[in-house]
Amino acid sequence: MDVRIGLVGAGWMGKAHSNSFVNALMAFGPEYGKPVFEVVSDVNVEAAQAACNQLGFSRYTTDWQDIVTDENVDIVDIATPNAFHYDIAKAALENGKHTYCEKPLTLTAEQSVELAELAKEKGVVNYVGYNNVMNPANAYVKELVEAGKLGKIVKFTGTYDQDGLLDESLPITWRHINKFSGSGALGDLGSHLLSISQYILGDMESVNAISQTVIKERPAQAGSEELQEVENEDVISFLTNYENGAIGTISSSRIASGRKNHLAYEIQGTKGSVHYTLERMNEVNVYFTSDNEADRGFRTVLLNPEHKGYSAFHPAAGISINYNDMKILEAHELLSAVTKNTPYTCDFEFGAKIDQTVSAILKSAEQKNWVQVKNTVQV
Amino acid sequence: MDVRIGLVGAGWMGKAHSNSFVNALMAFGPEYGKPVFEVVSDVNVEAAQAACNQLGFSRYTTDWQDIVTDENVDIVDIATPNAFHYDIAKAALENGKHTYCEKPLTLTAEQSVELAELAKEKGVVNYVGYNNVMNPANAYVKELVEAGKLGKIVKFTGTYDQDGLLDESLPITWRHINKFSGSGALGDLGSHLLSISQYILGDMESVNAISQTVIKERPAQAGSEELQEVENEDVISFLTNYENGAIGTISSSRIASGRKNHLAYEIQGTKGSVHYTLERMNEVNVYFTSDNEADRGFRTVLLNPEHKGYSAFHPAAGISINYNDMKILEAHELLSAVTKNTPYTCDFEFGAKIDQTVSAILKSAEQKNWVQVKNTVQV
Amino acid sequence: MDVRIGLVGAGWMGKAHSNSFVNALMAFGPEYGKPVFEVVSDVNVEAAQAACNQLGFSRYTTDWQDIVTDENVDIVDIATPNAFHYDIAKAALENGKHTYCEKPLTLTAEQSVELAELAKEKGVVNYVGYNNVMNPANAYVKELVEAGKLGKIVKFTGTYDQDGLLDESLPITWRHINKFSGSGALGDLGSHLLSISQYILGDMESVNAISQTVIKERPAQAGSEELQEVENEDVISFLTNYENGAIGTISSSRIASGRKNHLAYEIQGTKGSVHYTLERMNEVNVYFTSDNEADRGFRTVLLNPEHKGYSAFHPAAGISINYNDMKILEAHELLSAVTKNTPYTCDFEFGAKIDQTVSAILKSAEQKNWVQVKNTVQV
Amino acid sequence: MDVRIGLVGAGWMGKAHSNSFVNALMAFGPEYGKPVFEVVSDVNVEAAQAACNQLGFSRYTTDWQDIVTDENVDIVDIATPNAFHYDIAKAALENGKHTYCEKPLTLTAEQSVELAELAKEKGVVNYVGYNNVMNPANAYVKELVEAGKLGKIVKFTGTYDQDGLLDESLPITWRHINKFSGSGALGDLGSHLLSISQYILGDMESVNAISQTVIKERPAQAGSEELQEVENEDVISFLTNYENGAIGTISSSRIASGRKNHLAYEIQGTKGSVHYTLERMNEVNVYFTSDNEADRGFRTVLLNPEHKGYSAFHPAAGISINYNDMKILEAHELLSAVTKNTPYTCDFEFGAKIDQTVSAILKSAEQKNWVQVKNTVQV
Repeated sequence: MDVRIGLVGAGWMGKAHSNSFVNALMAFGPEYGKPVFEVVSDVNVEAAQAACNQLGFSRYTTDWQDIVTDENVDIVDIATPNAFHYDIAKAALENGKHTYCEKPLTLTAEQSVELAELAKEKGVVNYVGYNNVMNPANAYVKELVEAGKLGKIVKFTGTYDQDGLLDESLPITWRHINKFSGSGALGDLGSHLLSISQYILGDMESVNAISQTVIKERPAQAGSEELQEVENEDVISFLTNYENGAIGTISSSRIASGRKNHLAYEIQGTKGSVHYTLERMNEVNVYFTSDNEADRGFRTVLLNPEHKGYSAFHPAAGISINYNDMKILEAHELLSAVTKNTPYTCDFEFGAKIDQTVSAILKSAEQKNWVQVKNTVQV
Repeated sequence: MDVRIGLVGAGWMGKAHSNSFVNALMAFGPEYGKPVFEVVSDVNVEAAQAACNQLGFSRYTTDWQDIVTDENVDIVDIATPNAFHYDIAKAALENGKHTYCEKPLTLTAEQSVELAELAKEKGVVNYVGYNNVMNPANAYVKELVEAGKLGKIVKFTGTYDQDGLLDESLPITWRHINKFSGSGALGDLGSHLLSISQYILGDMESVNAISQTVIKERPAQAGSEELQEVENEDVISFLTNYENGAIGTISSSRIASGRKNHLAYEIQGTKGSVHYTLERMNEVNVYFTSDNEADRGFRTVLLNPEHKGYSAFHPAAGISINYNDMKILEAHELLSAVTKNTPYTCDFEFGAKIDQTVSAILKSAEQKNWVQVKNTVQV
Repeated sequence: MDVRIGLVGAGWMGKAHSNSFVNALMAFGPEYGKPVFEVVSDVNVEAAQAACNQLGFSRYTTDWQDIVTDENVDIVDIATPNAFHYDIAKAALENGKHTYCEKPLTLTAEQSVELAELAKEKGVVNYVGYNNVMNPANAYVKELVEAGKLGKIVKFTGTYDQDGLLDESLPITWRHINKFSGSGALGDLGSHLLSISQYILGDMESVNAISQTVIKERPAQAGSEELQEVENEDVISFLTNYENGAIGTISSSRIASGRKNHLAYEIQGTKGSVHYTLERMNEVNVYFTSDNEADRGFRTVLLNPEHKGYSAFHPAAGISINYNDMKILEAHELLSAVTKNTPYTCDFEFGAKIDQTVSAILKSAEQKNWVQVKNTVQV
Repeated sequence: MDVRIGLVGAGWMGKAHSNSFVNALMAFGPEYGKPVFEVVSDVNVEAAQAACNQLGFSRYTTDWQDIVTDENVDIVDIATPNAFHYDIAKAALENGKHTYCEKPLTLTAEQSVELAELAKEKGVVNYVGYNNVMNPANAYVKELVEAGKLGKIVKFTGTYDQDGLLDESLPITWRHINKFSGSGALGDLGSHLLSISQYILGDMESVNAISQTVIKERPAQAGSEELQEVENEDVISFLTNYENGAIGTISSSRIASGRKNHLAYEIQGTKGSVHYTLERMNEVNVYFTSDNEADRGFRTVLLNPEHKGYSAFHPAAGISINYNDMKILEAHELLSAVTKNTPYTCDFEFGAKIDQTVSAILKSAEQKNWVQVKNTVQV
């Protein structure tokens, strides 16, 4: 069965999604029908046309409503700026389309919960692109935790730090305006860490946060002397109580000088520990208290075919995987779900949980006290 | 001028202090008079005698009151269990003795503030043994911060994690009983991290903490089936606002599987960053945004004679220093202060600030809200 | 202009090449015409058919001679076992085809030199797939060396160690039989290191080697009790004098327990040094003596858009690249050369130099003395 | 029983030896009698006097012959420049003194073998200060090898690189003149690596070397325009066949930019591997093929009380040790041997083996061929 894709948004992420479909087919071969690039939409007509020429879409439009109602579209693939996710995903679901939405699901917990409920009701595949969940490293850590190899989990420590916005001469973008982004470092970077935490350790019970906007104004445009207000946080830190009893200490910054892609975490349990950073994507550090004392230390485990997802790319240990590979595994999981009804992790309920947590963290930073995560919105 | 030492407490720490005096003399030579091991006290008479034989003390006693009033003692060196620090230090100060107290100063902020005030009044040398302040690595980081090489400080992240108490069959000790220890992981380990934070970044304004006692009972004695309650925290995490405007995210655990001496921190500023762990004591990682982009990365700086304190031990870069070396530098700074009136960092006021911060953190964890650090007690 | 590809060999490497063409098109877009998957050959008819279905080749054959003479083929892409490279490449060149040959070029220096000369005579694009030359990390190091930032090069140290063949119950394969492989660890792994050395430091003058076959026999087939002789080296080490005056110390093992993809090297010059390992593909460690002493250390430079090739994949620093990305850059360079006559590094002369060096090293190990590299064969 | 020490040479190394005796007493306590600083000699009378004042020697002389014949001296401790080792050690042995000689034993294999034979004949304690043999990390690795935990040893790779002499404006010293130093980087640095190799892997059968003097002239004195010839190698590399069947690939440089104390090695066996660098003195990286594949990687083992020697300094894992600690363990082993007749590793025969190996390597570099180690001189 071929799977016909209607892409909304022909920018960098739209291209990334499309490449992933092609590579998933090449990697996993004839397991499922070919993804067919049926139709693409973009408000920018040149971008839409380019997507036809370059990515191979058959048709284009400048109106996403054409996509969600198109009879020849099986999957609506949403790769627009975040602020449009809600409307498009809602319309896609209402039209009974399988819906693939880049993270975050929407800009508010309420909208995300609404979509999660709608998706359940419609019974279609509903997928959010939290690609780190596809990382074989994180899958391996989840297996260690679930198999009890780390014992009872005691402490989680995590950061997602980048310095991409450290330069204060960089102009305002949609990322700095809440109606487009919802929040700052938390939604953009922190949410990736939350997706890993949710995947491996499950729900948070309550959170307590502080945040800070260090660069309070930015040029309205590159080189402009006119300054515009930055509406959301550059840095955020929070404590959390997990439902499983562990304590979490988490922070994220988009102005973290020297850190390029430092999505790093450590999980300490009563029988072992793990630490990991995306800057060294291919190695997981694992410690087992059961090793005898003289020979005991963190093991630098290079990813290998024993780790879920890795063998799609390499037959032997220690060969690098990358960001694209996580997106390929994501496309593969999505195509499998659509064609073979296989289970998947990052459904809209998962996405809504991340957005609920984000919402509780922001509320806590504003109110300067502990906030229950679950009370925000029910799924 | 010789400096006559009266040591109170002839255990492991008393021995460490005494060795440091000897080694300081050997390292720094004839800068000041010889430390003379005048008299030692220990409640255990065998321990007191052994200290004479092995360390070279001339006399011994089993009553510390003999030491603080001894006319032939210049420095009272307090290396007892923590709960005795207050009484002995107070008596030493009241007798006009230079007073050297192993960390922590006392078990409460109130007592420490009282001692700090008394020490000022008496005008004697008053020194607390926060040895990490002597680490050339931390001195180097302080210089970077104070010279503005990291820009405005934005974010501090730190942990002090060890797994020495992870094994739940280890029996109750004084560390688990608040009247002897004041607190758990925070006072024992976290306070070392606080000393570095205080030294480099200055005062904290407010704190917000959570803590947990994971191993709630321990054998009353090794091998015993009788269990006794653990009164204080195994794990603690807290957020902080620094007076300089930075945000801190800090945690400490004494049951952190795999971590042996992970006193680790990262300081991010607008012009650069530093990260460090005591498990790799000899290397500081530094990043400068001013390096050109192609060649930019964290520099793994091996300690070298340019870093304050290092050249006392080695004439060239990259030769390991260790815990003892920090204690030797501490003894050196103390002897210099006593004989030459030179300035020093870790006075009782410094020690009281740490204890005030500890007190605010514990209060916050109990009250589950933000607590001002300064309101606790005034120095 | 479309570029019509005739693939010889439909196995793992043939698939990798084909995927690279597709991804190069997606990454570099309309810079050049589409690669067209014209025809594929494999002695195994099922493999040839599968390549049509899965990779999109239009036609197939079981005889490679059909490919090299096919009028509708622009590039002959050779992805067969090594022993067939010579005959196929020679025939392709003689038919005036652009020729793309997976490394090594052939099994002997003589054959490779012959092909290099033939390729020059024919004036077609002639490309050998030494993918590490495409690695942005190695390109960056080459730039540092050529710009003089490391000063005069003094010492090269390198290894390529893997443990894929450590298990002695693994059966004999073509890799262990010299008529199929030419040599053992040296040709398979060491040649990759030689390609980097050649690319960055240029020609070697003389070499002196020792080698060893540790696992002397292997099962004739998996599980079989019949043992067959391993004909070539598991481990090889050699010294070299570079023409630029540097000394090299190099080794390679295919039974290096714990090493998965340890293609590691260090280049020391009078003004700076670099070290790198493929196991941490995304980071290059660079030291400059011009940094001031207090702040001096190896910089861990994460690959970023300043490094040649990287920006084809990611817009910002620190995002992982992988093996496939090197192959994509290789396909891109090849397609550019074919369609736009752009220069490229890994031509048949480059490939012949690697094979000459391999030949000299093997001869040295056999004769147990120094062997001149250039005397072996002239290009 | 007190042990009376006669120190020859009151410079940096003499001071280091003396400090080690004091610290060994403090660390190991009443196991043996006190080292008594009986008499010191130095050609520089001020240095000799200073050693009395600062280190506590009772008497001094400017003539080492007074020391070797002094009735009140039990151990002759030789800490002079290398060129004087032979004469002093020979005289000390002939006078029946226990003899402690800083490395290297002498400047030639012949002299060292002569001393080793004389020492055996005399039956006194004869000790060479190869301190790395005392490093708990190396002791641990030796135990792994001897217990068979790494299987059959296949490959040794090692370097000792420093950049202390990279600056070409540094003047000529005795290290550059063969009659004082015997050789360059090899004797000064490489010999430390040889001592570890000898300790862990035993005898080498043959060697094959190249060397280079990169900085051919240096100022006769600091700042002087007069240049003087550097007589020995800045860089040396060699291959070796071990008697146990392994292959070694080793190099050393004293002008290795960026390397401060990079005494690094890797040992690969059929069941496991180890790698280590003195720049991270406290951690040994160990890999066991017996670990299950998903969880397998190099373990970063922090030194702990299970490793021989460590518990003399620290009661728990992960606390830094340093250069001085190795010297303290050395002093302890020597004092134990003198007072309690306990066995020790670094006797003059051990020292002579290192010097034989050095001699064979130098000869090989000169002759440009393989040289048998054992044929040089017999012990």
